[in-house]
Amino acid sequence: MELFELIGKIERPGNSILEQAKKKMDNKLKPPGSLGTIEDIALKMCVIQNSLDPVIKNRAMLVFAGDHGITIEGVSAYPAEITPMMVKTFLEGKAAINVFCKQNNIDITVVDAGVNFDFEKQAGLMIKKVKKGTNNFLKTSALSPEEAAASIQAGIDAFEEIYKTKKPDLVGTGDMGIGNTTSSSAIIACITGNSPETVTGRGTGIDDERLKGKIEIIRQALSLHKPDKSNGLDVLQKIGGLEIGGIAGTILAASYYKVPVVIDGIISSAGALIAYALNNAVKDYMFAGHKSVEAGQMKALEFLGLKPILDLNMRLGEGTGAALSMNIIEAGCKIMTDMGSF
Amino acid sequence: MELFELIGKIERPGNSILEQAKKKMDNKLKPPGSLGTIEDIALKMCVIQNSLDPVIKNRAMLVFAGDHGITIEGVSAYPAEITPMMVKTFLEGKAAINVFCKQNNIDITVVDAGVNFDFEKQAGLMIKKVKKGTNNFLKTSALSPEEAAASIQAGIDAFEEIYKTKKPDLVGTGDMGIGNTTSSSAIIACITGNSPETVTGRGTGIDDERLKGKIEIIRQALSLHKPDKSNGLDVLQKIGGLEIGGIAGTILAASYYKVPVVIDGIISSAGALIAYALNNAVKDYMFAGHKSVEAGQMKALEFLGLKPILDLNMRLGEGTGAALSMNIIEAGCKIMTDMGSF
Repeated sequence: MELFELIGKIERPGNSILEQAKKKMDNKLKPPGSLGTIEDIALKMCVIQNSLDPVIKNRAMLVFAGDHGITIEGVSAYPAEITPMMVKTFLEGKAAINVFCKQNNIDITVVDAGVNFDFEKQAGLMIKKVKKGTNNFLKTSALSPEEAAASIQAGIDAFEEIYKTKKPDLVGTGDMGIGNTTSSSAIIACITGNSPETVTGRGTGIDDERLKGKIEIIRQALSLHKPDKSNGLDVLQKIGGLEIGGIAGTILAASYYKVPVVIDGIISSAGALIAYALNNAVKDYMFAGHKSVEAGQMKALEFLGLKPILDLNMRLGEGTGAALSMNIIEAGCKIMTDMGSF
Repeated sequence: MELFELIGKIERPGNSILEQAKKKMDNKLKPPGSLGTIEDIALKMCVIQNSLDPVIKNRAMLVFAGDHGITIEGVSAYPAEITPMMVKTFLEGKAAINVFCKQNNIDITVVDAGVNFDFEKQAGLMIKKVKKGTNNFLKTSALSPEEAAASIQAGIDAFEEIYKTKKPDLVGTGDMGIGNTTSSSAIIACITGNSPETVTGRGTGIDDERLKGKIEIIRQALSLHKPDKSNGLDVLQKIGGLEIGGIAGTILAASYYKVPVVIDGIISSAGALIAYALNNAVKDYMFAGHKSVEAGQMKALEFLGLKPILDLNMRLGEGTGAALSMNIIEAGCKIMTDMGSF
């Protein structure tokens, strides 16, 4: 569906079922509330699926990849060439996200939203390249308005393809893109109103000096572009990334189709903020898979009112935290369907 | 094996493989350390299994049940009759622990270590009843020295039966016993040296007044019995529980057979302290499945130097937190075996 039409049509889940779901939960063979977060997850699944018996049959993971012009400023511990290399690793099934998806029976698709490399058509890869990486947003807008919209459209299209072919009941978002924590921290600072210092971390593992430079670059970019935080497209265009736009598109589309979507770390959280700025209703369809080591991610989650399911001191991205949390989300559903009542 | 022979024979895992395992992990296709806790888990599994390719094929859960004389003092929100009722629920497969075990492919066995009810022999139940519940430890020792030893022996025997028939690579401990958070908090206060206030919680959900009474009972019992914290059997005998002894026995036996063992909430953590007091080496074979709402549990974990894998605001017991964490422990193993390297 076309981007603006879809954004206009996303609806909050009706929560007419919530009271019944709470009653069903409180009648289970346990002290009320004793399953904590598992109960919260179960109730959210009931509301999203509008059912007292929420089910997860099929799980999917969409990993969006894109390159970043900002890498030329030395914001990452790794060179930009790692982005296509890791995409190849995903396609060979050898990355951490492949391991966790296989373990947890999650169908994985890699989406090239803007990698600076021409991949061959192949199974497991969707080529939806908008352009070969963003511009250096320290100097100019990361994207044109049309490119920003196209990256979100790519995420919508990718979701719709998966939705039609794989019928997922739960979708995760992941990312690959050297330089993308810089863009994500800038987006989080802009939309949540936190300072660059508090939302910027070491990404793949930069030292103190580079971290200082990264924070300064974000400060300068925000001052140069003055993105309109109430306008997700404006923020994405000026300081965003193509994979971040893709993630935002998938979150919007999942919400439109009422499919719960699990976001991962700081990149997915930045994408979630873009989607949220375009339509607040997306929040009701999202789960936060984990708490990342990147401090900016928690600032984004707090802004969205989401509580991370896992806290495993991870900072890899790729969708790894989202993938590992799916088992916990399923546990919530199973409590509703399989556990006995008084 | 006989209790005292087994305790004497537990060995620390040799960690000659640790350096190689770290090298293998650091050579994986990711920034070093970026998988956080997953990496720690993977390395611990390598050391326990003495292998660079740790594997979990078979998972087992042992849920120990026992009654508590202390319930007569009004320490629980539920009557003692709930203990046998919940054991029946486990055997019918309708409790939360059954749901999580089924979801995660964990073979579950319930062990009657001291329930005040005569169960029929049946599949899934091991009857290793030492006596029909402990004495009221506010008045007298919870158990005789012989009964305390027998409860640990019951846990060893239960583990050995499972070990021989099911060949588990990972074992979880769970509990059922109305009144058992009182006994557990007393054990934790005694062994860790924390005050009764800081290690006592609401259990199944008592109000402020009962909580005050529960803390006072623990204080009085510790003052009456003066358990020797360096002697696990003395502590267990004076203020313990039969299911807590069983859990301690299973932790000791798992350690002897070099099988990693996942402890659950405050009851299992109290059992872990008893086992640790009998042989410190057990710590190297334990994982802490989750952080419980019961504050005393974290005090026990800190004393043991264990970090909980999950934090889901749970306080149900039964082994539920241990069961849910097994998927995460497996994820660590899969990183070692399935992920590509540079």
